[in-house]
Formats: sequence, C-alpha cells, structure tokens
Amino acid sequence: MRSDRPQDSHLDDTSPRYAQLTQRIAGKGASAWNIHFRAKARQARGEDVIILSVGDPDFDTPPSIVEAAVDSLRGGSTHYAEVQGKRTLRERIANFHRTHGGHADASADNVAVLAGAQCGLYATAQCLLDPGDEIIIPEPAYVTYEAVVQATGAVPVWVPLSADAGFQPRTADIAASITPRTKAILINSPHNPTGQCLTPAMWDAIATLCREHDLWLIVDAVYADLIFDGEHASPDSLPGMPERTVIISSLSKSHAMTGWRLGWVVGPPPLMSHLVNLALCMLYGCQPFIQDAAIAAFDEPPAALATMRDTYRQRRDAVVETLRDSEIVATLSPAAGMFMMIDIRATGLSTHAFADRLLDEHGVSVLAGDAFGPSAAGFVRLSLTVDAERLREACRRIERCAQECHGESRLAARPINGMTT
Amino acid sequence: MRSDRPQDSHLDDTSPRYAQLTQRIAGKGASAWNIHFRAKARQARGEDVIILSVGDPDFDTPPSIVEAAVDSLRGGSTHYAEVQGKRTLRERIANFHRTHGGHADASADNVAVLAGAQCGLYATAQCLLDPGDEIIIPEPAYVTYEAVVQATGAVPVWVPLSADAGFQPRTADIAASITPRTKAILINSPHNPTGQCLTPAMWDAIATLCREHDLWLIVDAVYADLIFDGEHASPDSLPGMPERTVIISSLSKSHAMTGWRLGWVVGPPPLMSHLVNLALCMLYGCQPFIQDAAIAAFDEPPAALATMRDTYRQRRDAVVETLRDSEIVATLSPAAGMFMMIDIRATGLSTHAFADRLLDEHGVSVLAGDAFGPSAAGFVRLSLTVDAERLREACRRIERCAQECHGESRLAARPINGMTT
Ligand SMILES: Cc1ncc(COP(=O)(O)O)c(C=O)c1O
Ligand SMILES: Cc1ncc(COP(=O)(O)O)c(C=O)c1O
Repeated sequence: MRSDRPQDSHLDDTSPRYAQLTQRIAGKGASAWNIHFRAKARQARGEDVIILSVGDPDFDTPPSIVEAAVDSLRGGSTHYAEVQGKRTLRERIANFHRTHGGHADASADNVAVLAGAQCGLYATAQCLLDPGDEIIIPEPAYVTYEAVVQATGAVPVWVPLSADAGFQPRTADIAASITPRTKAILINSPHNPTGQCLTPAMWDAIATLCREHDLWLIVDAVYADLIFDGEHASPDSLPGMPERTVIISSLSKSHAMTGWRLGWVVGPPPLMSHLVNLALCMLYGCQPFIQDAAIAAFDEPPAALATMRDTYRQRRDAVVETLRDSEIVATLSPAAGMFMMIDIRATGLSTHAFADRLLDEHGVSVLAGDAFGPSAAGFVRLSLTVDAERLREACRRIERCAQECHGESRLAARPINGMTT
Repeated sequence: MRSDRPQDSHLDDTSPRYAQLTQRIAGKGASAWNIHFRAKARQARGEDVIILSVGDPDFDTPPSIVEAAVDSLRGGSTHYAEVQGKRTLRERIANFHRTHGGHADASADNVAVLAGAQCGLYATAQCLLDPGDEIIIPEPAYVTYEAVVQATGAVPVWVPLSADAGFQPRTADIAASITPRTKAILINSPHNPTGQCLTPAMWDAIATLCREHDLWLIVDAVYADLIFDGEHASPDSLPGMPERTVIISSLSKSHAMTGWRLGWVVGPPPLMSHLVNLALCMLYGCQPFIQDAAIAAFDEPPAALATMRDTYRQRRDAVVETLRDSEIVATLSPAAGMFMMIDIRATGLSTHAFADRLLDEHGVSVLAGDAFGPSAAGFVRLSLTVDAERLREACRRIERCAQECHGESRLAARPINGMTT
C-alpha cells in the first residue's frame, strides 16, 4: 500500500494516499482560528468571555434584504441559476464598482458572481497562477491567502509591512521582490488585520510596477464599503490597468451578510470566461434567491448600512479612548473595517502567550498578530464586533493583563541574587 | 508581453497570461449546454419549445423546506457557519447514509457539507488526485467530470460503456484500464445520462479491484433517492471499503433543490480534514439558513418527495409507451433518475445533427449523447422535466423528426442515376 500520510493524527488510517495539495493547504491559516473556537466553547459553557477574534459582524442582515430572499424563495427561485451570476445582479455590481472609484467602462461582462470573496480569491488564483509562479503579498495578511495561493502550486512572496511605518507598504520593498517568476501582486485595502488603506500615490506606484513587469494586480476590497474617513480608490481606473486588475469583494462585511456567501470578481472579460468554466465544475452557480437578495441590497441600500459603519467607527474610537492613557499597550487606529491592532510589545510576552493568557485569565479572545505574518508579531488583532461598552470592558481587561505581564517580566528581568548580570 | 491566449474570441486582450489550468477546464463540458441556452432563448421569445436538455426538476422546492429556510433567515442565521457543516446537519446526513445502504458506522465525522454535489466532486478530486494520476471513469459520463478531473492535472481514463450491453460497465474493461498510475475509480450510479444502476455484483467486483490495487472509489450518488424499482447499494458497506470510498450526493435532484447548492461528501475522517482545509480557502462554509432547511428536509421529509419520484416514473413510462411502436427510434428505460436515452442510430444522422434539427425544426431540445462521451453517439438524452402530456408531444415530434431524417437518408442512399453502386 502506498503511504505518505500528511496528518500525524491519522497514522492508523489505511486509506490510499491523498493528493500533495492537501499538504499545501494545511498551513497555519487553518489553525489560526483555534483560539476563537476555544473562546466559543467557553462562552457556550456560560463563561463571561468577550469574543473579539472573528470578522463576523454582530449585526444580523438588514430585514429588507432578508425579506427579498424570502420573497424570491417563496416565488420559486430555487432552480439552477446562470453560472456567471444573474445578469441583473452583475449589472448592479458593475454599477456599484463604477460609482466606487472603479473603471468607468466596467459592465456586467466584467463581473462574475461567486460564493463570497473567499471563493472569488480562490477562483482568481486558480485562473491566474501556475505552479512555481510567484505572487507578491504584503504581510501581515489575511490568513487564508497562503492556502489560496499554495492551492495553485504558486509561491507567496511575503513583503514585510513595518509596524513603525504604520503597516503601509513601500514601493521599494515591492519592487525589490519582483523576479522573472512574478505573476501578480495581491493587495488587500482596506487591510485586514491593520485597517489601513493604501494611499492614491501608493496605488499609482504599484500600478506602474504592474505595467512595467506585465503583472496582474489582484485587489481584495471586502472592507471598501467600511471606510470611516475618505474614499476608496480602485486601481483599475488607472491607465493601462483594467486589463490587468482583478477586484474581489462581497456583501459579507458591509451588509452583515457573512453567512450568505455572496461575492464577486471584477476583471477583464477573458478572465470571466475562465472563471465561468471553473465555476461550472466547482460550484455550478450561486443560489438565485441569494442573488435576488443581493439585487435588492443594491437597489435599496438599507439605512442600516450607514448605521453599522458609524457604529464600527464609534467602537474604534471607544477602544482608542479607553487605551489612550495606557503606558504599556498602544492602539493603531484603523481607517476602515472592523478590526484594529494593539501593540503589546512592551508586555515582554510573545503575542501567542499574551493572547492565550488574555483568554485564559481575563476572558477576552483576540488573534495573535503573528497569525497574519511575522511582521505583526508584537500585536494582537481585535474585532469591533461587540458594543462599545463591552469593548471598553475588553480594553480594561487587556490593560490589566498587560500590566500583569509587564510587572512579571520586569520581575523576571531583575538581577538574580541581587547581582547585576 | 507574454502571450498564450487560450481563447480566440479575446485575441485583442492585452492582459498578462492566464494559468494553464484555464485550458484544462475549457473542454467540451463547458459547451455541452449551448443547445440548451439556444432553446431557452427561443422559449423566452415566446416560441413553442419543449426543453428536455437540462437536469433541473420542473418542481419548486417543497414549501416546508422553503419555510424552514425562511424561519432560519428571519431568526438571524446569517453569519459564518462551521466550515465542515453544522454538526446537526452532518448527523442527519450520516443517518441518511446509514439507512440508505451505507456503512453502518458512518457518523458526523465522516461528513463534509459543500456547495452541491458538484463542489463535493471538485473538492474530492482536489484532495485525492495529483497531476499525472489516472482516474478510471465509465463513459458516457456527466459532462463536468472531465473538467473536475483535469482541474487537478490528473488524467481521466475513459472506459466505454456499450450501448448494446445497456450501458452497464464490465469488470474486465475496468480491470484492463488499471495502470500503476491509477489512483481512483469514479462511478456514477444511478447514472447520468443513461439512468442505469450498478448491480450489487458489479459493486462487489469494483470493490475487489479497489482493494487489490489500493484505489479510491468515488461514487456520485445524486440520483440515489430517485430509484424507481429496487434499492440503492453503497459500496462503503463492503469489507475494506469504508477507508477508500467517497460518496458524494446532494438534495438537488431528490428534493428539487438544485438552486440551493447543498451537497455533501461521506468518507474517511482524514479526507474530511483535508476537505475542511480546502473549504476554508475555497468557500468558507455553506449558508447556515440553507443548512437549517436541509436539516428540516431530513427531519420531516415532505410527502412531495415520493410524489416527485412517482411522477418521474410515470413520465418515463409515458415516453416508453409513446415511442414503443416507433420503427426508427428506441428507448432505453431508466431504472432511476430524471433522464432517458433515445437510440436514434437508425435515422442515419449524427446525434448533433439530429439534436440541432430537432430543436430548429420541431422545437424540442435534447442533448446529443456524444456530449457525455463517444460511446453514447447515436443516442440523445432527454430530461423527464415536463409533464407527461408535453413529453408525449415531444416524443411525437422526435418520431416525426426521425421519420424525416430516415426518409432523407434512404433517399440519399439510393443508387444515383438508377444504377446500383
Ligand atoms: C481580507 C479578507 N478577504 C476576504 C474575506 C472573506 O470574505 P467573504 O465572506 O466575502 O468570503 C475576509 C473575511 O474575513 C477578509 O478579512
Ligand atoms: C451525475 C451528476 N452529478 C452531479 C451533479 C451536480 O449536482 P448538484 O446540483 O448537487 O451539484 C449532477 C447535476 O446534473 C449530475 O447529473
């Protein structure tokens, strides 16, 4: 019998072997959520746990969108739908894209509807990346990117974002990472986990690199509709960029629709043909009643959307304010999204140790920055997904935990036996 | 600029190149539905077209299932769900599997919920097949299989099913196709397009081959709940098979839920771990409100299910009866499912030519058997997805078209200038 079991836990498994792919997708991404699941389990047992470890809005989907799905379901929209996505929905998405900084000529033919931005990222990577290709990604980065890229056999080339530069990419760093194997640059703006947005100048610089080196520019814009101040910029509006830019987004975050799995890809029409071929064998289309709900969401944007965005901003402000006077932890104020980074370097603990202790002893779950890449070591990411009052309480617990750690690490650093070492 | 454009229609495209994958998934599978889209367009223009070219039930989803989704949606089940699928749903699926001929120990840990059987097939292939691996598939076969397999870089090895043997596989043919590169056998039973079921003896023989050659057995069982006579057999109940069998199914066909994209994979737990890792980067879980509807479908199977099955059987009988006296076309009566094959070899036309003419001149759309593989040349597949009266009318049109073709081909075959050649 052939054997190269990828998983220790299944050494007693006697099934034939699995594909090598299974090893490429089993990275740390898959385990990043362990702390979250631990927190959920404790909460389920009735413990006082504040869960700030996941990017799932605490809001339910606005009722008008739910009712659009209900009407569609009851009306019998329960059959296979057009694999590229309903034309009406693709028109709405194209319109949304055009009016949100995107290329002025984007039409329904530039859009494919897929099962969430996650599926959009996966499918795009499949259609663009060959084994051995390199794709440049600033890190910290959203945890699934590694598996998305490695599923294709391509190699993620991580470009460190410096905490001291506010986690903003630097053109020189990206340029220095380009090799003859580079096929694409993947930019997530607004950014998870840091909440930072690329500046227009930075988009220009990256677009120039893409044109010069004939690269794809893939943009993950799932937080674009949650910008607190300023406008979202979309690089496919820059010269020479529509034919090499792929914009991926969804209703998950802006519309509190994470569970609906409704996202899209905007890009050149040949990419759409390829995505449809892939979707034919991978998905066979998205639910028509969910697409109808999405159409309603675009046609009559519920007032709740602005309210949710304002609420995230107020929560951000509550965290910044509560931790303002801390002498140990520092906040990095996000310009968008539903996350923020807390600098815990002064505690002397590794971020994993800090996050574990924060959950175990203080009942707050956050993600260790390193889960998103080594450049975020020293930071924890918290989600703005509980109300401002609970967030303030979470901040007080974070501060208390940080104080304890700080005190202990100063104690531990004290000269042993009174001798200076 | 690099260039190896895969698509003629986009020669003016100036974007960077696409992945080689795009060529592997652009097979005939993707174009098989052209005739169907043509028929839909004519029907939309108000023409009298009988569409028998797609496997989408003409029934809407039973109301009790729709209402379960409505309740769940209104109750706020709009957030990310467990990526492997809700445990309650996985328990129901495991129970369904056990009580439908499957392995007696199957539990929730043997189940992953994915976006339809299509997604289950795709994800399973990704986790089992390496580039260059061979997978044995009887043909004719469901049109997406080619792309599903080739997306992994593996090679489908087609084993012809003989029309004269009623499209039943022969052990010797499968055995003769096994090479050192063979990794799996994919069996679809009940079978699309022919509606035939594997016999228990045949399952035994295939299982023996799988054990002897350490192969995976992948079973596409989407029509298992639409068997007219007899019981579905599941090969994971055979000795030594649970650890090497993967059963893929969905609610699409049996529950008239094609648009819901709710399917599953039953197999050994390590496969489930791999599928979850893949689903994390490809899907990020299935809609919780759809899963709740599926749970309701298992808990209180609507009476409509049996009615639909009976209706398909009556429609099958209507076709068989209407074409019984034809001297040109012959029917192959299906034991299950919603399709049947009509033998049009005596018309003298290629199946594509016949299908085109049938649509253009008689307003009936069917799929050419060759779309499913060369061994089905000479057959067209029709779907039992209109009522018996319309089906009888479709059969009369088929007979008329066949008569015409037959007459013309006899004329064409007549000795030229009265001389015998
Ligand atoms: C940066 C980023 N991209 C993509 C996703 C996935 O979004 P969706 O729910 O649309 O698949 C997330 C979800 O957390 C995310 O943070
Ligand atoms: C044999 C076969 N397998 C799989 C599928 C896909 O089913 P689902 O809707 O569950 O993805 C079909 C649909 O026609 C089919 O005929």
